[in-house]
Amino acid sequence: MTNTSLEVIGYVRCDYKEKFGIPRQSGLTDCATAFIEMLPPYNQAEAFRGLDGFSHLWLLWDFSKAHKNGFTATVKPPKLGGNQRMGVFATRSPFRPNNIGLSSVRLLDIIYNEENGCVHGLVVSGADILDGTPVYDIKPYLPYTDSHPEATGGWTDSLDIPELSVRFSDDITAKLETIFSSAQIEALKEILAQDPRPGYQDEPNRRYGMLYGGYDIRFTISGDTLTISEVAEPGPQ
Amino acid sequence: MTNTSLEVIGYVRCDYKEKFGIPRQSGLTDCATAFIEMLPPYNQAEAFRGLDGFSHLWLLWDFSKAHKNGFTATVKPPKLGGNQRMGVFATRSPFRPNNIGLSSVRLLDIIYNEENGCVHGLVVSGADILDGTPVYDIKPYLPYTDSHPEATGGWTDSLDIPELSVRFSDDITAKLETIFSSAQIEALKEILAQDPRPGYQDEPNRRYGMLYGGYDIRFTISGDTLTISEVAEPGPQ
Repeated sequence: MTNTSLEVIGYVRCDYKEKFGIPRQSGLTDCATAFIEMLPPYNQAEAFRGLDGFSHLWLLWDFSKAHKNGFTATVKPPKLGGNQRMGVFATRSPFRPNNIGLSSVRLLDIIYNEENGCVHGLVVSGADILDGTPVYDIKPYLPYTDSHPEATGGWTDSLDIPELSVRFSDDITAKLETIFSSAQIEALKEILAQDPRPGYQDEPNRRYGMLYGGYDIRFTISGDTLTISEVAEPGPQ
Repeated sequence: MTNTSLEVIGYVRCDYKEKFGIPRQSGLTDCATAFIEMLPPYNQAEAFRGLDGFSHLWLLWDFSKAHKNGFTATVKPPKLGGNQRMGVFATRSPFRPNNIGLSSVRLLDIIYNEENGCVHGLVVSGADILDGTPVYDIKPYLPYTDSHPEATGGWTDSLDIPELSVRFSDDITAKLETIFSSAQIEALKEILAQDPRPGYQDEPNRRYGMLYGGYDIRFTISGDTLTISEVAEPGPQ
């Protein structure tokens, strides 16, 4: 007999409002912070006792936008050009038998609610998770058992993922500065530098849009340079 | 809307037949192997394509012997002497809001069933998991994003966990050799050297028993030496 239901213990609150543009693995954009808002009764301050000594955490969460029926044995990793299939168990694809995501993040702060003595939530960085994602567990990262720097990364070892150079014009920079904090702007640069396009697209004239922090960031990519062309308020949904 | 049910994709088959004696974290006993038996439809060979290039895996599994009702914010880690409470989110305790265990293991082999073209299962080492445990997911270990050797381990950093010296008499050695493979005997030595007692017990005359590979391994511990006194067939359940 196994458990068949999962309790949501919290929700991710962050600037990633849609799947497009989210870093493909955790830890790649250390600038971008996320807030893990805790729900009662899991927000009792006692439940976090001793957590502040850990630099990193594991988050277990729900691939809430990737549910589908039925099992497909293979997936097409975007970074393999989107036309090569790998076994789902050889990938971290969201389309898997159970939609549980696993991310290691850096713990920056624990925010207590002075009024009720509970934890409001955790500030973390490096999360590759969509805003509003349900969280199922928080576990401490234990370096003596979780860290295997000598591990081989299989087909991911041979991926050559160059960073893009990201260009903001003076106008765009001024606009960004009226909207975002400097940390958010740094995070946006990091995210864009990792090339949010699927691996099989290379259309210099195509205009891409990515929702970030409630705004639609529009850009083009030519060669290894990404240029932001507009920062627009998103239209009605 | 989140998923509320989990599909069992396989079962752990190993020599740990009861909770007592299981290593407290994955990777501590590299000798001990476990078999992850896959269930249809998740055993399709295609689902494992590309997995053989990874040296390590993550297993997500069910703490099937640790279900309980209600949420308790703190737990008593055995290695803290069993009388000090830590927040559940600062531990890897099985008693947590969702009973999902997380273990990194070494991938030793993928066993194919020649007759039906499916995967029978995976041979792994370092699993800290009970025999018969339901498995929910298998993910590749990605060293570039999962390995943080610089991470701080909070209260676990200050634990001093000395290894016991394990003594087998000639009689016991001969008996073990008639029952177990030499790899199983090595694994048993590793497991016992890590001191299976809860941290708060220190009774030199107490006789402990641990089920391993279908046999009841009985031993005493005095100072830093563990001596096996008997290897018995377990009684009727």
